[in-house]
Amino acid sequence: MNNFSFRNPTRIHFGKGQIAKIREEIPADARVLITYGGGSIKKNGVLDQVHAALENITFFEFGGIEPNPHFETLMKAVELVKQEKITYLLAVGGGSVVDGTKFIAAAAEYPNDPVEMLPTKGAHIRSALPLGCVLTLPATGSEMNGNAVITRWETKDKTGIFSELIRPAFSVLDPETTYSLPPRQIGNGVVDAIVHIVEQYMTYPVNGKVQDYYAESLLKVLMEEGPKALQDPTNYDVRANIMWAATQALNGTLSLGVPGDWSIHAIGHQITALYGLDHAQTLAIVLPAVWQHKKEQKKAKLLQYASHVLGMTEGDDEQRATQAIEKTRAFFELMGVPTRFSAYGLDESVIPAVVAKLKQHGRLKLGEHGDITPDAVTELLRLAL
Amino acid sequence: MNNFSFRNPTRIHFGKGQIAKIREEIPADARVLITYGGGSIKKNGVLDQVHAALENITFFEFGGIEPNPHFETLMKAVELVKQEKITYLLAVGGGSVVDGTKFIAAAAEYPNDPVEMLPTKGAHIRSALPLGCVLTLPATGSEMNGNAVITRWETKDKTGIFSELIRPAFSVLDPETTYSLPPRQIGNGVVDAIVHIVEQYMTYPVNGKVQDYYAESLLKVLMEEGPKALQDPTNYDVRANIMWAATQALNGTLSLGVPGDWSIHAIGHQITALYGLDHAQTLAIVLPAVWQHKKEQKKAKLLQYASHVLGMTEGDDEQRATQAIEKTRAFFELMGVPTRFSAYGLDESVIPAVVAKLKQHGRLKLGEHGDITPDAVTELLRLAL
Repeated sequence: MNNFSFRNPTRIHFGKGQIAKIREEIPADARVLITYGGGSIKKNGVLDQVHAALENITFFEFGGIEPNPHFETLMKAVELVKQEKITYLLAVGGGSVVDGTKFIAAAAEYPNDPVEMLPTKGAHIRSALPLGCVLTLPATGSEMNGNAVITRWETKDKTGIFSELIRPAFSVLDPETTYSLPPRQIGNGVVDAIVHIVEQYMTYPVNGKVQDYYAESLLKVLMEEGPKALQDPTNYDVRANIMWAATQALNGTLSLGVPGDWSIHAIGHQITALYGLDHAQTLAIVLPAVWQHKKEQKKAKLLQYASHVLGMTEGDDEQRATQAIEKTRAFFELMGVPTRFSAYGLDESVIPAVVAKLKQHGRLKLGEHGDITPDAVTELLRLAL
Repeated sequence: MNNFSFRNPTRIHFGKGQIAKIREEIPADARVLITYGGGSIKKNGVLDQVHAALENITFFEFGGIEPNPHFETLMKAVELVKQEKITYLLAVGGGSVVDGTKFIAAAAEYPNDPVEMLPTKGAHIRSALPLGCVLTLPATGSEMNGNAVITRWETKDKTGIFSELIRPAFSVLDPETTYSLPPRQIGNGVVDAIVHIVEQYMTYPVNGKVQDYYAESLLKVLMEEGPKALQDPTNYDVRANIMWAATQALNGTLSLGVPGDWSIHAIGHQITALYGLDHAQTLAIVLPAVWQHKKEQKKAKLLQYASHVLGMTEGDDEQRATQAIEKTRAFFELMGVPTRFSAYGLDESVIPAVVAKLKQHGRLKLGEHGDITPDAVTELLRLAL
């Protein structure tokens, strides 16, 4: 096991009716900006619950934060923050709203043009407004970490930023708020959380047993509960298990002292930025290709996954490793997320475009060994056509 | 799954050489009191590493905190804190030193006689000195929670206290510091951590899958690695896995949204207070008795444990439940911790004494159903003779 340092001070309020806890978290004299996305929170009663919790607290609203939140949109919110002297941000929505709100929190305090924050991946963030979160879509884990992914629409660039300063002070996770999600978002969320886990797990063994077994635990939960969420959308325990698993998947616990891959995300981000595919769709396309391409390097962990998560006992090592990849692909398809470019009307012309974007961002050495070069990406993406 | 709120802001520095990180955590102008136990940290080089990390910081030392730390001893440290105007406490040792130091942190700021804190279980703690920790014995989980257990020697009372204010700001976990532990302390530590886990797991199912699978993960790690630590005391990865599992076992994650038992600890504490047995020894005696006595109520989880942790597939439900209890007992014995009163030279006369202590403390309704009455304790302890 490798050395690590770790701290995660976000407070979680989990369960039915917990939106009311916002009142305990936000100072009574705060000037709050509620941020949200396409407006589903107005239909499913979530915004009403938030308003009730903020009774007698001054608040404003900013809607329309899109999936893969755009720098250009978020800068409009920054203007509103400055104009109304906002002191607290409250993100109400899924990972895009939370990520976008993290960017707003830092950009509102950034002394220069906030576009500078993107190439530095947040390294130059020195202060940020406090923020809280009401999560309505379990997927990204953004509710309990300091990460955000921002898309600059003008240049079709999608960049991850990180700072301890943009970690939510608190997050409310009420599984009932997820009942009204369309199946596509349920499928996407489960796939996204699974790929977060395996980016921290499907590498090479360093005998980090707690981390490995925790990762396997979360994979089992998501693979057991995901299909049930599609079949029985108002089953509370199913939604609760998925929601808590997705948060745990990227709250920092799994990556402690073990290597990470993250090539699947790096490649996927370019596909979304270029072609607008859902984030999880890109991951579902890229994962089987990366695993197939790196099967020998990842074999020890593929076999551990085949045994501990998928319960496979038949066949030799080569067969089980291959089957583990194919069973993962089949699970994504079962969740309604196709795993090949062709299913999205895309062909081999995507490959040079994606590779060019990776080169532009200097992402020339991806994966846990740093050996997924642009040439390797070209080769592996052919497995995803 | 039940509702929960959760926050754990303790920072962990894990790994070889991480004692040096103390320097980043403690303010340069602090007046530090290093607290420790019997002095093993002077022999194994840990104290030297701490001194090096505190170079140019003013520090004092207070040794002699005993296992099951005594109120009477800790009050001497409180005097020293006041006399030397200490501003930061640094516990260097195992759970007893950490627990004792938590008490010192609160007692030093307590306006009345600190003996008052014990019957209130810490409810009246309003402030405490900041504290950090260098853990040298993985077992109690005290390094990442706000719990402490204090023994009042004069009255033979052992009381748990809790406050967010006595949670360590940081803890250093260097597995190499555990190499010099005697086998008895290794065995005790693994048993203690296992019992922490099952107090939060071996109850009744509420479909908290992440919590259940995490608990099973930690049980597997401890059962796989525990015997290796006895056989191969300087295997770094073995020590690292045990150390991180023991911390995870009681950092709050496992108990979220699920019922807890804690009868094993409640009964065990009285045995230690009365007869001076090691904490883990009392748990190893009481656990099989409680599980046997409550086999019907706990059967669903006993069978889940038999399957997921012990890999049992043979026999009917009754046989597997019984075997799961006996295999757990056998594991404790394998770790060198006997599981019956007779092995410690105690006989049935302990039973009325333990029951009287429980009554004195008002612990009349133990367990996840609150139905382990004094009569039930009398009955179940006969299974432990």
